[in-house]
Amino acid sequence: QACCSIDRAIDAKIKAAVDSKVSATLAKSQLTCTTIKTSGALAACLHGYTVTGCSCGKACGSWDVRDNSTCHCQCANVDWTAARCCKIVR
Amino acid sequence: QACCSIDRAIDAKIKAAVDSKVSATLAKSQLTCTTIKTSGALAACLHGYTVTGCSCGKACGSWDVRDNSTCHCQCANVDWTAARCCKIVR
Amino acid sequence: QACCSIDRAIDAKIKAAVDSKVSATLAKSQLTCTTIKTSGALAACLHGYTVTGCSCGKACGSWDVRDNSTCHCQCANVDWTAARCCKIVR
Repeated sequence: QACCSIDRAIDAKIKAAVDSKVSATLAKSQLTCTTIKTSGALAACLHGYTVTGCSCGKACGSWDVRDNSTCHCQCANVDWTAARCCKIVR
Repeated sequence: QACCSIDRAIDAKIKAAVDSKVSATLAKSQLTCTTIKTSGALAACLHGYTVTGCSCGKACGSWDVRDNSTCHCQCANVDWTAARCCKIVR
Repeated sequence: QACCSIDRAIDAKIKAAVDSKVSATLAKSQLTCTTIKTSGALAACLHGYTVTGCSCGKACGSWDVRDNSTCHCQCANVDWTAARCCKIVR
């Protein structure tokens, strides 16, 4: 009998500590984004980031993403391109 | 000897509890996004969200992000701005 | 006294186990994005993904998101629509 109650006590202790610790640690992981703007029709995210959207000069709304990391603005004579780059940080 | 076996028993319990809790918690953590649309050239995400992309009225594709939370549409006389806002939820 | 030290010992074990497990697991969880491009004014993300931004043909920068999963390009005679779709993978 005594052995079971010790067992249960340890289980309960472990569960409570694990729950709070895991939630606290995971709560710190967040989505972080930044913008990389360059002249011309291409803008590349830094390593570890991925493109979530692109903005272009000359009011151009036609763009595509190359290698998941580089924005390409398709309109003629686009003067600048900006990549919205995001990743998960802990 | 007895002490080591108790030690190992507790370690095993802890490991099992941690593994299941972390997997369960992570399985629930997801990327969630919403759109905030306002008249004029600025649209701000709610606290805790970050901008991943922006849309503008008047077919305008030129925008920038201020403080990682606010879309700014750059074309003249833009009638509305919409921010695509994302975060991680658990 | 003995009881407290056992308590503290178990707590220390739990903390160490949680830290290593959570860090290892989180290190693997990443933001992944892909682009879905279709002709016409609508482009839908695959199940499990959410829209972070949209691109449209005809240089159109005016778009909205339907059900968090579908890009809608608002300009007349838009020939194609591309949805930037993201999710968390572990």
